[in-house]
Amino acid sequence: MVETTPAEGHLMGTGPHVEFRVEPSGYRHWSLDVDGPVATLTMAVDEQGGLVPGYELKLNSYDLGVDIELYDAVQRLRFEHPGVRTVVITSGKEKIFCAGANIRMLAASPHSWKVNFCKFTNETRNGIEDATANSGQTYLAAVNGTASGGGYELALACEHIMLVDDRSTAVSLPELPLLGVLPGTGGLTRVSDKRRVRRDRADYFSTKAEGLGGRKAVAWRLVDEAVPRTSWDATVAERAGELAARSSRPAGAEGVALTPLEKERTATSVSYRHVSATLDRGAGAVEITIAGPDAPPADFHRADFWTLAMTRELDDLILDLRTNELELGTWVFRTTGEAEHVLAHDRLLLDNAGDWLANEIVHYLKRTLKRLDVTSRSLIALIEPGGCFAGSLLEVALAADRTYQLDGVFEDVDPDADPAALTVAAMNLGPLPMGNGLTRLETRFLGDGEALGAVRDAAGKPLEAADAERLGLVTFAPDDIDWDEEVRIAVEERGSFSPDALTGLEANYRFPGPETLETKIFGRLTAWQNWIFTRPNASGPDGALRRYGTGRRADFDRKRV
Amino acid sequence: MVETTPAEGHLMGTGPHVEFRVEPSGYRHWSLDVDGPVATLTMAVDEQGGLVPGYELKLNSYDLGVDIELYDAVQRLRFEHPGVRTVVITSGKEKIFCAGANIRMLAASPHSWKVNFCKFTNETRNGIEDATANSGQTYLAAVNGTASGGGYELALACEHIMLVDDRSTAVSLPELPLLGVLPGTGGLTRVSDKRRVRRDRADYFSTKAEGLGGRKAVAWRLVDEAVPRTSWDATVAERAGELAARSSRPAGAEGVALTPLEKERTATSVSYRHVSATLDRGAGAVEITIAGPDAPPADFHRADFWTLAMTRELDDLILDLRTNELELGTWVFRTTGEAEHVLAHDRLLLDNAGDWLANEIVHYLKRTLKRLDVTSRSLIALIEPGGCFAGSLLEVALAADRTYQLDGVFEDVDPDADPAALTVAAMNLGPLPMGNGLTRLETRFLGDGEALGAVRDAAGKPLEAADAERLGLVTFAPDDIDWDEEVRIAVEERGSFSPDALTGLEANYRFPGPETLETKIFGRLTAWQNWIFTRPNASGPDGALRRYGTGRRADFDRKRV
Repeated sequence: MVETTPAEGHLMGTGPHVEFRVEPSGYRHWSLDVDGPVATLTMAVDEQGGLVPGYELKLNSYDLGVDIELYDAVQRLRFEHPGVRTVVITSGKEKIFCAGANIRMLAASPHSWKVNFCKFTNETRNGIEDATANSGQTYLAAVNGTASGGGYELALACEHIMLVDDRSTAVSLPELPLLGVLPGTGGLTRVSDKRRVRRDRADYFSTKAEGLGGRKAVAWRLVDEAVPRTSWDATVAERAGELAARSSRPAGAEGVALTPLEKERTATSVSYRHVSATLDRGAGAVEITIAGPDAPPADFHRADFWTLAMTRELDDLILDLRTNELELGTWVFRTTGEAEHVLAHDRLLLDNAGDWLANEIVHYLKRTLKRLDVTSRSLIALIEPGGCFAGSLLEVALAADRTYQLDGVFEDVDPDADPAALTVAAMNLGPLPMGNGLTRLETRFLGDGEALGAVRDAAGKPLEAADAERLGLVTFAPDDIDWDEEVRIAVEERGSFSPDALTGLEANYRFPGPETLETKIFGRLTAWQNWIFTRPNASGPDGALRRYGTGRRADFDRKRV
Repeated sequence: MVETTPAEGHLMGTGPHVEFRVEPSGYRHWSLDVDGPVATLTMAVDEQGGLVPGYELKLNSYDLGVDIELYDAVQRLRFEHPGVRTVVITSGKEKIFCAGANIRMLAASPHSWKVNFCKFTNETRNGIEDATANSGQTYLAAVNGTASGGGYELALACEHIMLVDDRSTAVSLPELPLLGVLPGTGGLTRVSDKRRVRRDRADYFSTKAEGLGGRKAVAWRLVDEAVPRTSWDATVAERAGELAARSSRPAGAEGVALTPLEKERTATSVSYRHVSATLDRGAGAVEITIAGPDAPPADFHRADFWTLAMTRELDDLILDLRTNELELGTWVFRTTGEAEHVLAHDRLLLDNAGDWLANEIVHYLKRTLKRLDVTSRSLIALIEPGGCFAGSLLEVALAADRTYQLDGVFEDVDPDADPAALTVAAMNLGPLPMGNGLTRLETRFLGDGEALGAVRDAAGKPLEAADAERLGLVTFAPDDIDWDEEVRIAVEERGSFSPDALTGLEANYRFPGPETLETKIFGRLTAWQNWIFTRPNASGPDGALRRYGTGRRADFDRKRV
């Protein structure tokens, strides 16, 4: 049972209710064809199929709804199609590969919608790269028509880019010259840091609205090869076969169907089997509880294996809240259950690290935790008696901006309960890195090998508040008497601060240390883009984004800032 | 002769004319005392000495004028006081070290002023760290009263932070809770990446307006030591002596006085001895010409040594144009002179790398080129006959977003001239790294060792257009027939784009590859801060920055973005 709020009001800034649960039979914009080791994802966007009224998705341009289908397809390929080794992304339309994000949609959307939309599309493209790097499913962009803006950025997320070599087909990033904004989905960073296009060429390319094609696009490293139409199909098939041959995906493995999520959504709650959330609109907060497994694991080759099922639910909840509940600025996490059961599930996965499905589940959990890291909400974890912040679930606490652990028990609830505890385990020591390439523990104790060593030495043992605080694993450890007051004040205070300043603060403190393609995209590039989006030169009545397609040029404030 | 435009209009967004040339006898806010190896910089801000009318600089708060004096003092210490090994920064006021940037000034300033102001203060603090790291002048913050916001950020730029240990003196970053913005001068990055404060503690600290002091501030690594007032003076002196003992500064060296710059400023030009600029308000561009030395060098122990004199002029010009000429969005660089003379000056400095003054001059040139890298103007270099883009001056071309080199000569100007050439030399191969820790050549050929090797092999030879283009050193190499048209279009086109989008594009493409404290401050942190500054939650009529001090709380749009 899903209660959806009406799709009205998007253009007034409140946004429609968006669900992220789709399946291939319901796709309107993509088709997924599997032919042995090669799958083809064909984009043929339904012009009338926009998620929100008010624009047509011409020229294979996309909105959030189109990208939700793409995300679903990438996920299903990994879990349901273990035999697939190469995924070809191509267009089902004539002469156009993809024109990028729909401009009218962007121009009419409130700032928060644009930013949220870009975040999700970024995550999906990072997921494509993650599948290529960690899943033996290599993405090939078969750019059979012009790819502009977000269309080229989609190709940039693929390992290999093939472009039709004729006089008219080009790749381009026309955002700056045409719209007065930046490419919204990692384009600049991938051009410079992934494809290593020389900076002055990158500059020229990004100011040339019509883009570049043919041999010049190859020479400048914008694409990997330019292929005449006459040999297009054969060359794409050949390249797909070559990439497939490099994969370590097993032959004959059976996939796990990602069965529909059981979800109940009301105005004040979201409930799944293992994850539930209470929406406290008064406090501007969400109370999220993750239930651990209720028994040790038997077999992980099933969709209801706890880690996979819980991760799918958490993933959906994050996306739902991020998109639909903008004013609930603080997420408070609790867990319930037996730490031992969580740790047993972790062990089963890590003991089977060579198995394709165990590998997929761990990487999916990793990606879902990364969504938390880049979520613009204050994250608070509460470690209480009866919880199971251990191993994989401890990562949720380590992703939080602050962690409170009860020192002991709630005397008036259950004086005989085991004291609140957390447990460090193998899942915290490597398999679930953040976008910066470090584990959350390495990030937490950046440059402090001694502190990190002490935590490693304590792995496997339930740590009560005093030990956890001494080891630096929790922020505060109030006792029963102070607990309610301290937690209440923390949540209330968070709700009183500037939401924007909190977003900036968290985006900086969550990612100390080294930077990667991912952190540069979510940190530096996204921040510049957010800034540009808010400026009158883009979004004001005379700005380039609003004037696009009107026949009138933007009227810029010429001051450089 | 300096023509200044009146200081009117700042609050309307056009800004007063600002000059950066000061000297200690004219300081209103700082005093500089040198006592053997220890210098003391005492901050006692003149409340009535604001650069612009409309605010009082209470509680040792600062504006751009205060920071211009600090920058001058840091520079003079390096050149005029070679015997100084420790610089103590302290306050001349009771109970307050520094309250940071003046809030009323910020609240009344246009966005461009805030951003420019923060950039300059960031550069000055980076310069303090550069002096500590490379100049044997270690900065010690003697925090003898509360240091809040930018006051604490000033301390964070110092190598060692001492805090008075009493019940009231604290360090704090109250920007988020009180003003709804982020600390503007690298605070978040230095807390997390330099001082390695644990992320959850950093979060708590940055939401606690009153800050932390005493032993807790030490335990959390916010300061290095807390010292009772009774032993304050003695302990500061002791620590200053210890830091001085670690320095390699020579004894008995004689400083070089930074004599007043000869500068002529009109509404359409800025001229110094070696550097000149023509302001083309119609095109929104500045034509900048740097003259090389007119003879081989004799001795570099003098203020008029070409490299030092030219660097001082270029530094002042960058600051002048950045602050006073916001609408001139494109800077076009040319050089004139003999490449051999430039290279001879470079060699003299590098052959004397162990000399304190040669070291200072090279580091100053490095810092000035870094200013270019973070300047929000489009940079174009034109390599023409009669120019001297060689060694140190070639760095200006390598800092540009695009470079055009004439293929040959201007037939109708001087058909017998030597063809336009550039020369790679030792100065391009190490001594002048960018903020990302790489040379501009390493950044340009990121990950392409072969291309970089080919350039190294070509060092020392004048490279005409075809060779320079083949080696990837210039973007385009038009011939005499196409030159005027291509260059004109490039400049005109740049002037037609969104100034904001250009700033974001350039900030990303100029810094591919690794990130450092500096690039994180100018990239990620600054971009978030710019975004937050533009948002109604900060700068709108009901925003926190505007409401501060009115007794009314900000009225926030609660949507998290």
